[in-house]
Amino acid sequence: MDFDEVVRKRKMIREYDLGRQIPNEIVSRLIKNAHTAPSAGHTQVQEFIIVKDNATKKKLRKAAVNQEYVEKAPVLIVVCSNVSRSVGRYGNRGKEFYSITDGAFASMLILLTVVNEGIGACFVGAFEDNKVSEILELPKDVKPIGIICIGYPAEKPGKFERINIDALVHYEKYGSYNGAQQSSNI
Amino acid sequence: MDFDEVVRKRKMIREYDLGRQIPNEIVSRLIKNAHTAPSAGHTQVQEFIIVKDNATKKKLRKAAVNQEYVEKAPVLIVVCSNVSRSVGRYGNRGKEFYSITDGAFASMLILLTVVNEGIGACFVGAFEDNKVSEILELPKDVKPIGIICIGYPAEKPGKFERINIDALVHYEKYGSYNGAQQSSNI
Repeated sequence: MDFDEVVRKRKMIREYDLGRQIPNEIVSRLIKNAHTAPSAGHTQVQEFIIVKDNATKKKLRKAAVNQEYVEKAPVLIVVCSNVSRSVGRYGNRGKEFYSITDGAFASMLILLTVVNEGIGACFVGAFEDNKVSEILELPKDVKPIGIICIGYPAEKPGKFERINIDALVHYEKYGSYNGAQQSSNI
Repeated sequence: MDFDEVVRKRKMIREYDLGRQIPNEIVSRLIKNAHTAPSAGHTQVQEFIIVKDNATKKKLRKAAVNQEYVEKAPVLIVVCSNVSRSVGRYGNRGKEFYSITDGAFASMLILLTVVNEGIGACFVGAFEDNKVSEILELPKDVKPIGIICIGYPAEKPGKFERINIDALVHYEKYGSYNGAQQSSNI
């Protein structure tokens, strides 16, 4: 699919056709693209846990403020950052900042690739880290960044309204719009 | 360009053709795509500061451990997260986690769109937050997430080697590879 079309079509899908599994070939292509994600100093912290087991999905749902699509999605990809590859080099910034940007880069690639593959996904960031770590047996240096719920869409949600782009773009410094001070847009 | 081709071609570009400015239309398309980025609970925290002024770029370079491409890039897009739109709802997780994932989602969209537009970019996450905030006059609730340096490429860097994908993908729980315990791949 054309790149801009993928970007335009992307939206979070939270209801899935429960009768259709996601073919392994598609999961592989999602991971393949996620594997191209950049990382701070090429530390390649990103790792991926593919979850299909119902009991595990049920536990993850509970760890994720009971969001039901975490349990119902045919497949989950839990994106993690292995900070053992960055902490020695970057200290706290590696642990508390790059780990999150890098995990999010890989997650965004999955969310876009999903559209290109004709399926649907939802990024879940609301969860209790320690519970997810326990469920997935993550070593202490591996941090969960997002639970991506994936399936064939069973809904066609509309696009959300968005803040006008002019109010979000600044020129040279914060609060300058189109070169002038047009703060009435905010 | 085809979506998968954009993903495959993306790499960080740190040397730019200093004689070529980036047309405003391209900058607008970068921002337009970044503006489609998801955010926690649709809080739309992402904001963008476009910097072309040489004096500002010089200051930002100093704030970014003296990385020279920050000064030399014809245009910078500084991606910020306005946590005033999330903290009330999400507290610390909004401030210290969603702000970073959401800023990184928008940044990844810019990095990919750059490829689709035939130009080059580099994401810089190594900077002193307080100095960047001071230079760009960011309000206290607006947090810098990345400085994206953009220009026409003047280099063709090779692809970095990457950790084998099989060592980064786990099944059902951490440390399980292709359903079996093949930890020799790590």
